[in-house]
Amino acid sequence: MDDVADAVGVSRATVSNAYNRPDQLSVQLREEVLRAAKKIGYAGPNPTARSLATSRTGAIAVLLDTNLSTAFSDPALSLTLDALSTVVDPEGHALLLLPGDGESGGPRAERILTAQADIAVAYSLADGAPALNAVRDRGMPLVVIDQPHLRGSARIGVADRAGAAAAARHLLELGHRRIGIFSAQCLSAPRGGELSAAEAGQSRFHDNRERMAGYLETLAGAGIALEDVPIWEASGLSVEGALPSAFGLLDRHPRPTALLCMSDLLALAAISAARHLGLSVPGDLSVVGFDDVPPAQWSEPPLTTVRQDLAAKGRAAGDLVLRLLRGEKAPAPAEVPAELVVRESTGPA
Amino acid sequence: MDDVADAVGVSRATVSNAYNRPDQLSVQLREEVLRAAKKIGYAGPNPTARSLATSRTGAIAVLLDTNLSTAFSDPALSLTLDALSTVVDPEGHALLLLPGDGESGGPRAERILTAQADIAVAYSLADGAPALNAVRDRGMPLVVIDQPHLRGSARIGVADRAGAAAAARHLLELGHRRIGIFSAQCLSAPRGGELSAAEAGQSRFHDNRERMAGYLETLAGAGIALEDVPIWEASGLSVEGALPSAFGLLDRHPRPTALLCMSDLLALAAISAARHLGLSVPGDLSVVGFDDVPPAQWSEPPLTTVRQDLAAKGRAAGDLVLRLLRGEKAPAPAEVPAELVVRESTGPA
Repeated sequence: MDDVADAVGVSRATVSNAYNRPDQLSVQLREEVLRAAKKIGYAGPNPTARSLATSRTGAIAVLLDTNLSTAFSDPALSLTLDALSTVVDPEGHALLLLPGDGESGGPRAERILTAQADIAVAYSLADGAPALNAVRDRGMPLVVIDQPHLRGSARIGVADRAGAAAAARHLLELGHRRIGIFSAQCLSAPRGGELSAAEAGQSRFHDNRERMAGYLETLAGAGIALEDVPIWEASGLSVEGALPSAFGLLDRHPRPTALLCMSDLLALAAISAARHLGLSVPGDLSVVGFDDVPPAQWSEPPLTTVRQDLAAKGRAAGDLVLRLLRGEKAPAPAEVPAELVVRESTGPA
Repeated sequence: MDDVADAVGVSRATVSNAYNRPDQLSVQLREEVLRAAKKIGYAGPNPTARSLATSRTGAIAVLLDTNLSTAFSDPALSLTLDALSTVVDPEGHALLLLPGDGESGGPRAERILTAQADIAVAYSLADGAPALNAVRDRGMPLVVIDQPHLRGSARIGVADRAGAAAAARHLLELGHRRIGIFSAQCLSAPRGGELSAAEAGQSRFHDNRERMAGYLETLAGAGIALEDVPIWEASGLSVEGALPSAFGLLDRHPRPTALLCMSDLLALAAISAARHLGLSVPGDLSVVGFDDVPPAQWSEPPLTTVRQDLAAKGRAAGDLVLRLLRGEKAPAPAEVPAELVVRESTGPA
């Protein structure tokens, strides 16, 4: 750095500013510094050293329950992170993705303790995931999405229970009484397979519990005995991973005439399974999804689903990130609405 | 840290190892250290300081041309990063996503100079993007995906030209002669609209140029005059963003009987535009995509497309990352194949 300063005839501080505070120099002087640096072969200040000095890394740690493979193939997550990034991007923050370890409902605590990030965003982790304690132990600001509020953190969620209730009411109004529930992964082990209503209520994931409660309360309120409601947990989030449980739900006598699915990808798996069995949707089977991700509109038939405003949720999370980074206190927990969108995958019983 | 060492009766180095090299301690001793740390309120070594000492951050900088919003909504990118992450995840590396600046064909150079990462992966940046020079100036190892090989970097790509040629041959064999080309974004400005073959050949993006060359060479080889081939550039990567150009392609007299689309999302936009115009696919219009992302199978009709093995490409990139991080030399550039998959969106002219 001294060589560069000498070559241009400026101070070390000016060279440093050329990299770290470009607004402090004229464009011309800055270019002169960078040109001299290039000639001399100086690659700029070590970002890690600078970060130690400023206590800022420019990274937002995004804590996930799933591995990145699953995360990237889940459009509901993609759309949320997408909207979050539109808010934090222009401020120069990058996302550092920390995948789950497959067991504890979040990333390993060690990953949190070693991650170079200024703030953490936790997306739908299991209750009590050790990663959440690690964030607290490190004294890192925290935004939680779709999980219970934690003291000191900022929270944004979705009206999951009301949305699920609307989906169940829609099927009841169409005259359905034999209604099955297709649940996202909710238990640690075993994964996939039939669940009792009591087991389903013990999901480690807040959004699952809320959606399940919305379904079951509404069905019970219409006089349907919950022991007669088949509930299957999917063994994966992808359409392919969910197929075995979809067949499980449809392989009953009498067969359900309608399915409440906890995500659109599960609903697409159910439609695919129905097609394999020669059933028409909605002629023989009505299917309701949850999320309203883009494939819900392109599917054949287009999905009736519960629309959660994923973009609004992500933008709200991004705003919370910027507020906490500015040192503001976490505001009261907030929720975006969820509303039923009726398309063509549901019909009369 | 001294307080923790005193409380447990071990050295500072042992406390440090409890966080950074857990394999150096018994499980029991490690837990004792962490318990004492928790009691005392010590959150562990500062990750940034440690990183300065080890020269490792644990992060892989992923350089993108698009903003994160566009990136997350592009299943071809998601599937590639997804496969990459399955390889690097188990080794404890996290992905730091650096979006493009919308102008220079990659992230701003400053973002590279300040990013805390051990290695860079560049995904389909424009030729000569300043970010690539910044990576070189910093002396960072580099893996490039779908762009020209750079000296000293490792490269994985796709047989784009051969795949595009196979798509064009398929339409010619079905008897089509009035064939339009739907191009991904390839110029800086203006974005979207009709292109001449010469303009299309000047795309700043390697994969666009190769696909375009594969289409045009094959059509010319069949005696079709290139000035009669309508070529439109989409003004966005999403289905919605591509619709105006899709209408542009179909609003000609005589109308094309078939379209070569440079991505599956563009093909879905073309099918959507055709439906709006009351045209049947493939009765009135054949459509071929590129990529074979999951929606290609669910669309109505299912897409004929050029399958690139996105998972193999991502895994290969992950392997290259691990090799360069181990200090190995970059191997010779490699390519994954691209092959035509015939489904139901193409038929006789």
